[in-house]
Amino acid sequence: MNENAILHMPESKFCYASDENVICLRLRISRYDFPDGIRVIYGGKYSYATVREYAVMQRQFEDRLFAYYTVTLKLSDLRFVYVFEISCGDKVYYYSEDGLSEKFDFELSYYNCFQYAYINKCDIMKPVGWMKTAAFYQIFVDRFNMGNTQKDKSYINLKWGDIPDPKSFAGGDIKGITQKLPYLCGLGINAIYLTPIFSSISNHKYDISDYYEIDSNFGSKEDLKELIDSAHANGMKVVLDAVFNHCSERLSQFRDVVKNGRKSKYYDWFIITNDEPLEYECFASCIYMPKFNTSNPEVCNYLIDIAVYWIKEFGIDGWRLDVSDEVSHEFWRQFRKAVKSVNPDCVLIGENWHDANVYLRGDQFDSIMNYAFTKACLDFYAFGEFNAVKLADKLNEILMRNTDTVNNMMLNLLDTHDTHRFLTRVSGNKDKLMSAIALTYFFPGAPCIYYGTENAMEGGYDPDCRRTFDWANEYKENTVKTLVKTMISLRLLTEFALSPVMIYSDGISVVAERGGYKLIINESGQDINYSSGSLITSNKFNNSVIETGGFLVEKLK
Amino acid sequence: MNENAILHMPESKFCYASDENVICLRLRISRYDFPDGIRVIYGGKYSYATVREYAVMQRQFEDRLFAYYTVTLKLSDLRFVYVFEISCGDKVYYYSEDGLSEKFDFELSYYNCFQYAYINKCDIMKPVGWMKTAAFYQIFVDRFNMGNTQKDKSYINLKWGDIPDPKSFAGGDIKGITQKLPYLCGLGINAIYLTPIFSSISNHKYDISDYYEIDSNFGSKEDLKELIDSAHANGMKVVLDAVFNHCSERLSQFRDVVKNGRKSKYYDWFIITNDEPLEYECFASCIYMPKFNTSNPEVCNYLIDIAVYWIKEFGIDGWRLDVSDEVSHEFWRQFRKAVKSVNPDCVLIGENWHDANVYLRGDQFDSIMNYAFTKACLDFYAFGEFNAVKLADKLNEILMRNTDTVNNMMLNLLDTHDTHRFLTRVSGNKDKLMSAIALTYFFPGAPCIYYGTENAMEGGYDPDCRRTFDWANEYKENTVKTLVKTMISLRLLTEFALSPVMIYSDGISVVAERGGYKLIINESGQDINYSSGSLITSNKFNNSVIETGGFLVEKLK
Repeated sequence: MNENAILHMPESKFCYASDENVICLRLRISRYDFPDGIRVIYGGKYSYATVREYAVMQRQFEDRLFAYYTVTLKLSDLRFVYVFEISCGDKVYYYSEDGLSEKFDFELSYYNCFQYAYINKCDIMKPVGWMKTAAFYQIFVDRFNMGNTQKDKSYINLKWGDIPDPKSFAGGDIKGITQKLPYLCGLGINAIYLTPIFSSISNHKYDISDYYEIDSNFGSKEDLKELIDSAHANGMKVVLDAVFNHCSERLSQFRDVVKNGRKSKYYDWFIITNDEPLEYECFASCIYMPKFNTSNPEVCNYLIDIAVYWIKEFGIDGWRLDVSDEVSHEFWRQFRKAVKSVNPDCVLIGENWHDANVYLRGDQFDSIMNYAFTKACLDFYAFGEFNAVKLADKLNEILMRNTDTVNNMMLNLLDTHDTHRFLTRVSGNKDKLMSAIALTYFFPGAPCIYYGTENAMEGGYDPDCRRTFDWANEYKENTVKTLVKTMISLRLLTEFALSPVMIYSDGISVVAERGGYKLIINESGQDINYSSGSLITSNKFNNSVIETGGFLVEKLK
Repeated sequence: MNENAILHMPESKFCYASDENVICLRLRISRYDFPDGIRVIYGGKYSYATVREYAVMQRQFEDRLFAYYTVTLKLSDLRFVYVFEISCGDKVYYYSEDGLSEKFDFELSYYNCFQYAYINKCDIMKPVGWMKTAAFYQIFVDRFNMGNTQKDKSYINLKWGDIPDPKSFAGGDIKGITQKLPYLCGLGINAIYLTPIFSSISNHKYDISDYYEIDSNFGSKEDLKELIDSAHANGMKVVLDAVFNHCSERLSQFRDVVKNGRKSKYYDWFIITNDEPLEYECFASCIYMPKFNTSNPEVCNYLIDIAVYWIKEFGIDGWRLDVSDEVSHEFWRQFRKAVKSVNPDCVLIGENWHDANVYLRGDQFDSIMNYAFTKACLDFYAFGEFNAVKLADKLNEILMRNTDTVNNMMLNLLDTHDTHRFLTRVSGNKDKLMSAIALTYFFPGAPCIYYGTENAMEGGYDPDCRRTFDWANEYKENTVKTLVKTMISLRLLTEFALSPVMIYSDGISVVAERGGYKLIINESGQDINYSSGSLITSNKFNNSVIETGGFLVEKLK
């Protein structure tokens, strides 16, 4: 046994309650160790010295360095204590808080066994049920569709179809989205995420000057109500963008600080670093976006009231949390409690580009935008960094960053308004895009399509990734759109949506198995190792050779 | 480099803010790897692609398997991102969220560098200042001293000095403690922790029937006020025992449930598992101690009000939290906020026998009773499990369980009312006891002496560890008491109290260095490797051979 590789942490992603009396365990060992068996020896905290149960753990995940053994236990005593027993030939090792040893003294185990001392109901992370079958679509509102043709269009400075610059306004609005709900329903989409819609002078509206008003270019509260009601009537969820890290310099509270300095009652709402000239913390280096001081309870209450208002009054189904990694944990804890008390099924999706396990332990977010998944796909399809083995390893490693509860709520995406479009990253190769889309739908969590991807939209980094949707050519059926529809219909199948995923590489392909279906992605032009189930879809048409990313989806017999 | 051994986790004990612009970093590698150097390459989140700084990390801790490199950084940009650079001969490795690699693309680092995205003030764990120089004394109230000789003594059934059984009442009370404050001051003690004092029919009072009343056998609220005021007047802190996991079956709310069943408005205050006959979750298997349902906000508020009441009205300085590991995290988070808003310097010490890092991240406790330290001492001094190397390794491993902020508030103890007395565990060997006491005072955190230890009290497991204090022989100066006084006077020295500790083994001894002082503990009868500073204290009198635990403390030149 490679002792350095072994890792377990109690009350973490390695040991968590998925239900009132259900514990999920993971144990990490070296990928290159193959013990004869690993069991967990468990029992009640006060009876462990005398009464113990055994459960065999299964090798379920492998990444580049490690293998992960798992088991799920139904408990009778909620005061759960345990050690691991690893059998290697005629040797038996115990793994406890004191590490690996050849003997373990159960009499003194109250000092050094592992424990989840009591499963308290309120500490269990409850999954948002509808995320299990959610198929998301992200809309950058100004560029999706203009629905209100009667509005004052004087702000519009970009002709629909032209390439945008950072200051372009194209005229997209909320009514435009409502009009296109049938289109989205046609694709199978059942959840939309809109970039910000509150009052702001920018096209992206991440600098908000009034959190209680819809930006007039985008429409009205009535328009939003209509959108949400129509969406709900069609079984579709609506997630809005919560920009709570910073605001616009035009926010009245900040203007008060600019005017009154230290005398302003809002002085501590921001993080002022110098009085004269006024200097303050802001988003990135954008001084028109002052950062909120979320260490100030007044600010927390102000922002939480906003979050609750739009849930209560408009029935939104979730918040995507902008720059969530720079906002205080203390704020997010309060925020979660307030939001969940109004609607436990309101999903909270952080914008954390990095490992965000600290935010995903049940007291803060449900999910994040899964940019680690994005990067893995780029490394395989675009950057030439990954072969099939490396991609499979990385995908498993990403899954081991969080609990399965969280994994099943992750927002998995290939691109967003903050990245190059994936199709452009892969030099317009639709086969690669389709292959990546297929993978997105097999990966645990909720897949999210950035608007126009189904229409093979291209675009470089911001602002180019925010082009207008080409409705003129939308009607043309294309292979990407067909694939999206196919993959969504698969995702909506209960046996698929509720099944765990197994991802591995056979050396030349990445294989994902889920709920009786199998995805095979080739790393190069070899023939796909078709296991003779029934073919669902593929990008390997007419025996054409696809260098990276040739794939097929089959239904296993 | 042994890749399996490398470990780092952002926003954890491996990366935490110790002040508004100060970040402490740790990187774990194999103990058997000695790279030429490890640096952290860090910068601001939005400028990292172009502007980066470098800081050399020091190898500071070694346990059985791993070495830990550390560095503390003062930041100008609070949006901290970083990767580690490990130099080995002509190779340079980078360690990022994607693991170890020979190249790192700083252009794409927003995907995979480590980060502490913004240091928000409210998330920083603030140390309780007075813990830095605290020297604790734990008192089991019924057995320490009887002060009120006028009280109704009919409940007393144990003659002072006789061996107690589980149902013994000896008559110790709060007035008795107040009377002995001069004695404790004489030892140098500046903090006392009392086992529970609220209304209860037991001698230990862990089954409380009224949280707002002092148990009449122990005295009155006036007595407590007098004790706390006298203690404070003598620079001494008072910590009480918070029994919030469970109560007595005599608590009025529980009696209401027994009487009215499901109709009781307190039905959900407990965790009822069967209505008729009434069955419910309790402490261990003690049905006279029903467990509170801390998933119920009403219960949380009830208990928090109690905690705040005794701080506000009586000025207590801390709570020791009984069976804290079985109470909900949600409760402890609310509890901490409420307590700290009344008195930020009120210390919160959990009774967690195991690795409790989950509770010690700044949102729940400050500290725990450090039973892992206890066990390490037992393994060395009592059980013959540890030699000097193993003890040094284990002590370092324990330090790596939590941040330095937490380590410096740990309650380090050799025994309590819940264990055998340490002197009894080492078969009455006072040399071993003294050696262990010396170690307790060198170890980071607050040392705690269980009442009577200074008087060489013996006792097996509960109830034997709860014997009456032998005041008749207290006046006899003994070597243990002298040592306790010496060690406390050392601890009160600022240069000692505020200094970090380095613990290692030279093969035959455990060495602890702290603030210009050095402790050497031999594992067997060898001569102590005296480094010719000035001797402070020792148990190696008259060149007698001490098999395990011969020690000296010296002041380094």
